[in-house]
Amino acid sequence: MRLDIFPIETVPEVRSGDDLAGFIAEAAAREGNPLLDGDVVVVTQKVISKAENMLVAIDPDDPLSHKPLVEQESVRILRRRGELIVSETKHGFVCANAGIDLSNIDRGYAALLPEDSDRSARRIRDGIKFRLGVNVAVIVSDTFGRPWRRGLTDVAIGVAGIEAVVDLRGTEDAKGRVLQVTEVCVADELAAAAEMVMGKASGVAAAVVRGVNPAWLGEGSVRDQVIRHPSEDLFR
Amino acid sequence: MRLDIFPIETVPEVRSGDDLAGFIAEAAAREGNPLLDGDVVVVTQKVISKAENMLVAIDPDDPLSHKPLVEQESVRILRRRGELIVSETKHGFVCANAGIDLSNIDRGYAALLPEDSDRSARRIRDGIKFRLGVNVAVIVSDTFGRPWRRGLTDVAIGVAGIEAVVDLRGTEDAKGRVLQVTEVCVADELAAAAEMVMGKASGVAAAVVRGVNPAWLGEGSVRDQVIRHPSEDLFR
Repeated sequence: MRLDIFPIETVPEVRSGDDLAGFIAEAAAREGNPLLDGDVVVVTQKVISKAENMLVAIDPDDPLSHKPLVEQESVRILRRRGELIVSETKHGFVCANAGIDLSNIDRGYAALLPEDSDRSARRIRDGIKFRLGVNVAVIVSDTFGRPWRRGLTDVAIGVAGIEAVVDLRGTEDAKGRVLQVTEVCVADELAAAAEMVMGKASGVAAAVVRGVNPAWLGEGSVRDQVIRHPSEDLFR
Repeated sequence: MRLDIFPIETVPEVRSGDDLAGFIAEAAAREGNPLLDGDVVVVTQKVISKAENMLVAIDPDDPLSHKPLVEQESVRILRRRGELIVSETKHGFVCANAGIDLSNIDRGYAALLPEDSDRSARRIRDGIKFRLGVNVAVIVSDTFGRPWRRGLTDVAIGVAGIEAVVDLRGTEDAKGRVLQVTEVCVADELAAAAEMVMGKASGVAAAVVRGVNPAWLGEGSVRDQVIRHPSEDLFR
């Protein structure tokens, strides 16, 4: 397996109701990298929130004006320190500030997470299939912190056309020993890999990972496969 | 930026004292992908633990015989559930079973984490430089779980020749807004990306990520840049 990862750099500024699937398909073709069957298209949460009208007006002169939104989007506050809130969102994610952020959007607005990011991924996958007749997988990515380790990484908040977690339990390692716990979250690994070609400051909306194992393609879901139920979680 | 990620598949079985840098350099050349300046070579913890003689004999018929090792390698137990122990290791990592595992090694042995994985990475980097005159970055990867999300992902436990965390604070986003918190843990993203071409069951020891941003190259350290001090950690 050999992966080729490249950004889609010419997606135009996205507004509510825009055909994001069309924008992505056209930009990739324009850049000389038309989408192919089996490609994984990683799309940032930010452009999806814009296309799905998840922007909310806030007071641009009050640096804390998005904080009531954080409470509104949360079902459980896990930790507070200063201005930082770590909470469980209504979607089931545990992250800082309920995933709300202000970067790469117009001043005076905050972007909420999409209502259902698996559905958002499915819409883009379907839109690309409809336009091009090409079967791609789609991952919606966002940037999360984590406990114990400094620095942020991109993770998957929605997928379509690919398993989010690949279960290798029961397969054998190179010594013929049966592997015990080896559920790999390939969706998060794909989101992380794509982040490196998109960067934070440049506003690139999407990237392609080409060459993934075809066995991973399928009807996955971040909600069903990745979100750990509080009852099986040791840190909630 | 465009990334090309491929495995190094023909590293021979590694034993204590082996010249792992030489094995990797030779295998890459043999496979038609000689290492180049600026390549990031991701090496699994397992082969480093073998080369550094971190294998410990255990009773092969007792599935719990490695548990005393877990306690010995830990400085603080965070959670226990059944056979699972989540602890802070003496190296500063928070992970399951102190990073000890039994896969892809001979029956009757358990592999401990390297004593100092930044140093292990540096040795391999220096060894490749010495043999080939080529400047690569090296990341030592291991497979960790995480709270709140199911599935495992590979992370970096040591680096050399590359910043583990890239600080984008103070740079501007595409709207000219100054980004506030955007320290990206590129070391973990590189480890995750490489995992996808190595797989768990196949025993592949290393992979190359070619095409990374040259601005990331530098004198990084997982210990200094990634490990979050308990005093600034909200979940310990």
